[in-house]
Order: sequence, then structure tokens, then C-alpha cells
Amino acid sequence: MDHRSRQRHLQSLLAENHIDGLLLTHLPNIRYLCGFTGSAAALVLTEKHKAFFTDSRYTTQSREEVQGARVIVSRKAPLVTAGEWLKSHYRKLTLGIEGEHLSVAAQARMKTSLTGGFRLKQAPSLVERARMVKDSDELERMRAAALLGVNLLDSLKSVLRVGAKECEVSAELEYAASRAGAEAMSFPTIIASGERSALPHGRASQHAIPPKGFVVCDFGVILGGYCSDMTRTLSVGRASNASRRAYEAVREAQQAALDAVRPGRTVGQVDQAARNLLVEQGLGRYFTHSTGHGVGLEIHEAPRLASGGKDILQPGMVVTIEPGVYLPGRFGVRIEDTIIVTDRGYEILTPANKELTEL
Amino acid sequence: MDHRSRQRHLQSLLAENHIDGLLLTHLPNIRYLCGFTGSAAALVLTEKHKAFFTDSRYTTQSREEVQGARVIVSRKAPLVTAGEWLKSHYRKLTLGIEGEHLSVAAQARMKTSLTGGFRLKQAPSLVERARMVKDSDELERMRAAALLGVNLLDSLKSVLRVGAKECEVSAELEYAASRAGAEAMSFPTIIASGERSALPHGRASQHAIPPKGFVVCDFGVILGGYCSDMTRTLSVGRASNASRRAYEAVREAQQAALDAVRPGRTVGQVDQAARNLLVEQGLGRYFTHSTGHGVGLEIHEAPRLASGGKDILQPGMVVTIEPGVYLPGRFGVRIEDTIIVTDRGYEILTPANKELTEL
Repeated sequence: MDHRSRQRHLQSLLAENHIDGLLLTHLPNIRYLCGFTGSAAALVLTEKHKAFFTDSRYTTQSREEVQGARVIVSRKAPLVTAGEWLKSHYRKLTLGIEGEHLSVAAQARMKTSLTGGFRLKQAPSLVERARMVKDSDELERMRAAALLGVNLLDSLKSVLRVGAKECEVSAELEYAASRAGAEAMSFPTIIASGERSALPHGRASQHAIPPKGFVVCDFGVILGGYCSDMTRTLSVGRASNASRRAYEAVREAQQAALDAVRPGRTVGQVDQAARNLLVEQGLGRYFTHSTGHGVGLEIHEAPRLASGGKDILQPGMVVTIEPGVYLPGRFGVRIEDTIIVTDRGYEILTPANKELTEL
Repeated sequence: MDHRSRQRHLQSLLAENHIDGLLLTHLPNIRYLCGFTGSAAALVLTEKHKAFFTDSRYTTQSREEVQGARVIVSRKAPLVTAGEWLKSHYRKLTLGIEGEHLSVAAQARMKTSLTGGFRLKQAPSLVERARMVKDSDELERMRAAALLGVNLLDSLKSVLRVGAKECEVSAELEYAASRAGAEAMSFPTIIASGERSALPHGRASQHAIPPKGFVVCDFGVILGGYCSDMTRTLSVGRASNASRRAYEAVREAQQAALDAVRPGRTVGQVDQAARNLLVEQGLGRYFTHSTGHGVGLEIHEAPRLASGGKDILQPGMVVTIEPGVYLPGRFGVRIEDTIIVTDRGYEILTPANKELTEL
């Protein structure tokens, strides 16, 4: 990971954003910029300085991990240490803060500490924008994470049987993930069977898999810090005609969205491709979420592939393509791949069968 | 869970805190007050109204779960919906916000939306204070969660062997937890062996358990929404004299802290009891964290049992007692129980052997 060039890129954006420096507090952004993986940190970037702050629990770890920034460890909270360091190095500074990630209370404490010539100003999401396009080191890790995820499908199918509890299925899946080296799951595993398949966020529950119907399986792992994300919908027993039609419609909508992926297109166009197809099939009103989202150090990142979205696809972006339909009280279907946007289209990171599987 | 009486209690605190209402955004606080377990919500409490806001993913779930408040579902983000609702019901309101949990950006959007007679004001941590003392329903759940955690020690000991990777040990532990019905782990499992035992936050890594030395095992589960938390330090092979002395000192320090627990005492007095003992043994400088913390819907809650802490222990508080010593490059020891503060002392929720175990 070339942390130093990431830092230089951020420094190059300061002037045009009318700030003298950035005070970073969002841990995934800090990890992206300097490599620190712990749970307590702040990072200050100015034209002249790059200073990283953590507390004494992370003395050893920060010195091993942090790249390109001076490491300052103290017994106090990182933001307090950062405030003191700023006062001792500057008399006057317009400091960009991460408004979406700094709490009102933390900002108030910072303002009390940084009096005089200091000014705190909400900065645009500069690091999030930078993180949208992955570099080759990141893509390598994301391929590895996605592959680990894909390989879990076998253990999933081997335990998914009528009468098993959803949470037993997710327990086996997560156990297989751990044994395969996953650092963690990237979000609470969704195993939603029967009527529960119509819940877009159907976390694995105590419900037993019923004798017939769909099971939506949505899961991801973290490997090397990067998240995987994929969904397959399996049928227990023979699918009814209505559910088969819905499945095929979602599969076609997902392919239509994939076919719409190309550098220069907007994310809204990709969403529209999936949405049009489901509307044509009379299922438009059951597609209640957006078509996808960026993935990387976080499971949900920019860009969001939502209706009307204006972000432009660029090579190196990693996003999910995951249309779904949810018929309340009946069933739901979602099919999701994670892809890299390439120069000419896309590369699928989660290659696994998408034809209707009847267990 | 008597959510309505919790709501009434909060309403009774509005006037003395010079606010007309509370805008709650911290999900554990919302769950505590009305029972909602989803991931997107806001709650407004005024003298006259109790209104809960979520998005359309949670239509069914919110109607099933939310107690004592009107449920308002919209396609928009809960805070946006809450803002619109406030404008349609009030012309003038001083609204307390949760400063530690509302982002600067969310506050700015709220201020843009709520012009005119509305005023946002950082409120004290009223819900966190209320949550410190658990009611009988909560204690029942915490006992069950802690018991599930204690029972994992057997599977832990059965897989903890020389040469096993720390993450293999944690994978087995977490698998056993899932099978036993845990909803999730309450924090990333710590299995820190050999020199790594000296890292207070030594998340299970790819390191293999060495032939000799301590293994710090710190883990917890979530059951019924409530967290468990416990630590035992095991010895692989025969412990050296120095490490045995440190182990016994920590064990005595932990007992001294437990003996100091009594309603009316300050949390600082409990911390001091453990600290004094370790100082007497010449280990004071290796005890680098506080003695414990509250546990409940979150793994770390108020009160914090830190040096000089002024919070007064009250019956029904649930806290950890977890002194430890960390000798960099050599070894570490931590022993942790979760306890309930009772009328006369304490009840241990995590009864498991604390004598030195040599595997």
C-alpha cells in the first residue's frame, strides 16, 4: 500500500478546499491514509506536517503500522493529544473536520481547546472520494477476500437443509470463514428463509428453514482489512412458477445492470438498467432498495448506485450489483455480485452459479 | 421490559434539564427506551409526544417491536422524517440532542431543516445515566448471556493447545457460541498468547500458541441484546516463578476490588483497591488501564471504574472487575468477572475457576 502517495494526494487538495489542514477521525480513513488498524486514533495532515495520534494501548502497534506520519502516543484520548499538538505547532489554522464522523460533543471539546486563530470547518468527504477508486494493492486484497467468500458457498449448501435453524446455517458459514482465515464477517450474515426472504435485512434468526421456498443468503468476510459481499438466493424444494418467474426477472435485471457498467456511465444509469427490467416484468414496486454500493475497507462506501445517482463510474471502482424483489408475506429474491469497474466494463469478483438452484 | 416507564422517567427529566424534548439517535438508547432492534431509527420524546422514526426497510419490524411510541415510517432517513414531523407538530421547541452520538454533519442538516423557533442543545447523557442501573428483566438477560459465556470455557480449553493459531482458538470459541444461541460476539475475541499476552488489546491473530507462557482469553457474547464479558488467563506448560507471582498478584487485586464493591462506594475506590495491591507487589506501573466498566446493551457503558472516578455504586449496576498487568516483551495477565452490585456487595455473573490453570 502506497500510503505516502495517498497522503500527498490529500495534501494537494487542501488549498482548493480552502483549508490549511485536515483533522481525520474516521478510522477507515485513517487506516487508508497511514495503515493503522487499531481502534483509537486521529491524524492531522497539513502542507507541512503529517502527525498521527493514538493512546498508550497502541504504542507498539502504531510504531509498527503507521507509514509516512509522525507517531505521537499519549495516555490521553487521541483527539485531546491532537489538540495539544496543534496548539504547540500552530497559532492559526483553518482545519477541515470530517463532519459525518466527528460528534457534536467532540467538536465542542475541540473548539474549547483550540481557541485564538484556529477555525474548524466541515470539509467535503475528500478521503471517501479518494477511496472510491482502488489501487492495485487494494484490488489484490479485494480479490482474495471475495474468493474466500465464494468458497464458503459449498459449506453453506452442505448445511442448508429443511428444519435447520437459520442461525445454525450462519454459524457453520462463519465457522468455515474463520477457519479459512477471515478476520471477521463484514456484516451480520443474512440467512432469510420462507416468508422471511421478503425482509431485505433478514438477519439469520431462530426460524427453521421451511420445506419449501427461497433462502436469501447474503454474507461477506474481511480479509487483509477489505470486505467481500455477495448474495445468492437458493430454493428449498421445487420453486413455484411465480417464484421462478421472479427469480429469473431478478437474474436478468442483475445482468442488465452488469451490462450497463462502463467507465463514464453514471451510477444512476446502472440502477436504471436493473429497475427498467423489473418494471417491465411488473415487479418494479417490489424492488425497494438501490442497486448497489461501493465496497472496500468498509462494507458500505461511496459510490451508492441509487436511482438518479450522478457519480461517474471509473476504472478501479469496486461496487456491488444487487437488485432484488420482496413480496411481503410471500417471498424475496436477491442476487448480488461484487465487481471491479474495468477500462471496458467489469470484472466479477464473486463468480458463482446464478442459475436457479433447487436444493 | 417496561419501556413505557423508562420513557416516563426520561420525560420527567426534561424540565430540570431546560429542554422541551429529546431527539434520540444512539441506537442502544433507542432500543432501551422503546425496544426497536434495527439499524436505522430516531426517537423524539417531549412532554406530550413520543414518536419513533425509521425507514421502509423496517416497516414490519418496527410495528412489531416498538413499545409506547407512535411509529412513523418513511422512505427517507429517520432524522429527515423526524425533522419534518417536528415542524408539523411544533413551532417552537428547545430540543436536547445526544452530542456524543450525533455527527456534526447531521446536526447541521437538522439545523437547516428546523429553522424559526427550534433550538438544538447538547443534552447531558440522560439515557446513559438511566441505563447504568439495570431492572430485573435486564438482569435476567445479563445472567443468561454471562452463563452462555462461562460455558464456552470448556470448548476453549479443549482447543487451546501448543501450535494452534490464536485465530483457530477464537474460531472454535465463536462457533460454540453461535451453536449455543449467541446472537453475536460482544467484541472481537482476544486470544493473546506468549509475548502477545502483554498486549491489553491482543485480538486473536495468526500467531501459534507457543510451548510456554500465558494465554489471555477475553470474550463475550450477546444474548437477548445484552452483552457478556469475561477474561481468564491460562498458562501453557508450567508457569515460571515470576509469571506465577504476577498471576497471584492480579488474582488478589481482583479479589480486593470485588471486596470493595458496595452501594455508596465510588467507582474510584474500587479501582484504588486493585491498584493499591498491585503497587504493593511492585506491579503498579504495569497496570495500564482502568479496573472495569459498565456492561449492558453495549459492551462498554457507564460507569467507568477508573482511578479517581466519582460515580457512586448503586444496586443493579452491572460492571466488570478486570485488573491486569502487562510486562512488555514478556507476558501479561488479566482476570475479569462481570458482577451485579447488590444491596450488600456483589453477585458474580461469571463464576469460573480463577486459580492458576496450567494446560
